[in-house]
Amino acid sequence: MRSLDTPFSFQIESRDSATAARRGRLITPHGEIPTPVFMPVGTAGSVKCLTFEQVAATGAKIILGNTYHLYLRPGHDLVARRGGLHRFQGWDGALLTDSAGYQVFSLAHLNKLDEHGVAFQSHLDGSRHLFTPELSMEIQIALGADIVMAFDHCVAFGADVRATAEAVDRTERWLRRCIDAFGPGGRTDREGWQRVLFGIVQGGVFPAERTRSAARLIDLDLPGYAVGGLSVGEPISQMYDLTAHTASLLPQDKPRYLMGVGFPDDIIEGVRSGIDMFDCVLPTRIARKGTVVTRDGRLVVKNSPYAEDDRPLDPECDCSVCARYSRAYIRHLFASRELLGQTLASLHNVHFYQSLMRDIRTAIDTGSFDAHTRPIVQRWREGEKRRIEEAGKRRPGGR
Amino acid sequence: MRSLDTPFSFQIESRDSATAARRGRLITPHGEIPTPVFMPVGTAGSVKCLTFEQVAATGAKIILGNTYHLYLRPGHDLVARRGGLHRFQGWDGALLTDSAGYQVFSLAHLNKLDEHGVAFQSHLDGSRHLFTPELSMEIQIALGADIVMAFDHCVAFGADVRATAEAVDRTERWLRRCIDAFGPGGRTDREGWQRVLFGIVQGGVFPAERTRSAARLIDLDLPGYAVGGLSVGEPISQMYDLTAHTASLLPQDKPRYLMGVGFPDDIIEGVRSGIDMFDCVLPTRIARKGTVVTRDGRLVVKNSPYAEDDRPLDPECDCSVCARYSRAYIRHLFASRELLGQTLASLHNVHFYQSLMRDIRTAIDTGSFDAHTRPIVQRWREGEKRRIEEAGKRRPGGR
Repeated sequence: MRSLDTPFSFQIESRDSATAARRGRLITPHGEIPTPVFMPVGTAGSVKCLTFEQVAATGAKIILGNTYHLYLRPGHDLVARRGGLHRFQGWDGALLTDSAGYQVFSLAHLNKLDEHGVAFQSHLDGSRHLFTPELSMEIQIALGADIVMAFDHCVAFGADVRATAEAVDRTERWLRRCIDAFGPGGRTDREGWQRVLFGIVQGGVFPAERTRSAARLIDLDLPGYAVGGLSVGEPISQMYDLTAHTASLLPQDKPRYLMGVGFPDDIIEGVRSGIDMFDCVLPTRIARKGTVVTRDGRLVVKNSPYAEDDRPLDPECDCSVCARYSRAYIRHLFASRELLGQTLASLHNVHFYQSLMRDIRTAIDTGSFDAHTRPIVQRWREGEKRRIEEAGKRRPGGR
Repeated sequence: MRSLDTPFSFQIESRDSATAARRGRLITPHGEIPTPVFMPVGTAGSVKCLTFEQVAATGAKIILGNTYHLYLRPGHDLVARRGGLHRFQGWDGALLTDSAGYQVFSLAHLNKLDEHGVAFQSHLDGSRHLFTPELSMEIQIALGADIVMAFDHCVAFGADVRATAEAVDRTERWLRRCIDAFGPGGRTDREGWQRVLFGIVQGGVFPAERTRSAARLIDLDLPGYAVGGLSVGEPISQMYDLTAHTASLLPQDKPRYLMGVGFPDDIIEGVRSGIDMFDCVLPTRIARKGTVVTRDGRLVVKNSPYAEDDRPLDPECDCSVCARYSRAYIRHLFASRELLGQTLASLHNVHFYQSLMRDIRTAIDTGSFDAHTRPIVQRWREGEKRRIEEAGKRRPGGR
């Protein structure tokens, strides 16, 4: 799998003629990854509920690990002593780690953010910690990720233009510190494998700030760029507009990663705007609560209407769960608090996203992205609308 | 897999010369099962934490389902409407269901036992139910088990000889009612597949009562016999003696099933006495609490001494868990409350038992059962002794 002859690179293999969608290939020391790609999230060393054999069987070739969680438990030093995160968790595919920038903002009790870094209290035990760009690099290098993310300053939805501009400036200064800590000329590990650092474009909901942030990062000529700080509460249409705006500014020949997005229709819209990489906890998180994704929107399989439904979770799905188990059975598992319910729902959902990305890549290859993906978006949205209407008959709800 | 040409049968293929151990083959409509066999327990329609692909990959060819649990949730009528338990849960191997006789005794709030049956309250919601031999047969027939167990009267450890004798008599009378309800001439289902009913020998800790119970059951000429009411609190040596005594009374040409046993050394002792079938919740139950089985006894992998232990759970194990994951990783999963920890420990433990049974069958085939199994028992017991001593240094404990 690992080969010194294949340093990190990104190749575009085909482009859609009518949109910015592109089909490419990300080449890493831990394998080649066809793009657009969806990365399952393995927060704390595990794509929750699934063995890595099961993750690999869905077709996933790259997963995401969380610096924040792994730093707190079991600790990056311990993981490094085990030979790095690949070896520790038994995953031989490619690995991207986030920088903890988003988690200290969203999960931890944020005590203080200044130019030096972010002081916060652990969501696990309240212990106090200080994250800096340098520490984020140290942790990610210890974990041994193929793709390391810069430590950025993410602002909350609702931040004004002044606070957003400050975060853009700080994100750039912190990125320079990340580059210094990571190794200005790139980085190869002890064994000679190349690792890369991606920058993260911020700028909140202000297109001008997005433009300014992208320009600053592009000057630093990194091997890949992420669009950060979206899907944090802004309206969907604004998220789409900001994604399209930001993606259009980024270099054509570098991979573009839209962080934390999302639903199938959001992903298709992202690809349409020229995004190559996605991640989201959605498929595994909703699975553990008894909800699965289907071509016709989400399905809350744990609910009683499915108690005698002999159909698979998604009748059009070719995953191992849909081949063997019915909605009635999986509903029974959730009703009986059998952990297998969470496993089967997670496995189906992770497979569903990999299958969606295969369909998207085929749509680009055949040169008719919109014609192939419009029906997918339409069915998803109609299914979601029906589900929300039906749920609304019993109680207020929504997306 | 299913074939009308292979009605239920049991063949003995080799015998150990120095002990009562025998190597056989149980032939069912859902496959052939080499014996001695260990049946993983799939209590409520799931071998807890494992997909049936994973269960099958351990080599298991027969599993046990719990009548008591499945009657309460999701209900045997619902399972029957789904096409039976095989189809409902997606398991195409053989299936044995217990009668609920033991669960109403051990799990439910036992309200009243009389000649008619057992009135009890559900351990789930306190609802009131009445189990009779006829209902147990109705449920097991609805579930569609290949092997149906008689509804018996199990006495608690400590019951005197009079109460034990009453239970022996009642067990026989209930067995006659089970036979009437099941079908006196045996039973084939709608599709023509043969199902069989096994009787259960009771008699508590009194050899004379065991003898009396066995004689009564043998008169009824059933296709298989179980030894029930052991491993409920009596000393291990007494359990061994009663097993050997009871097994020696049972017909040579019928399968013998020791219910709810147990540890690897107990199983080897059972095989030595001529037992062919075993089941126990131990491997899956302790796995969920962070304990695994190894050649050297149990290992509480969730404990901190394993935080930096890069060895597999059992260095001599050839399961998929030991091939990929370390003790340190699995310890991290338990410490982080990642459900994958429970899955990996369960998968290893179920595989361990299947592997143990393969070793036992090989030992019988090579004609030197004791020579091959004595070292296994010795290592297991020495390991258990060490573990208990080490645990005892911190707190009182024991088996």
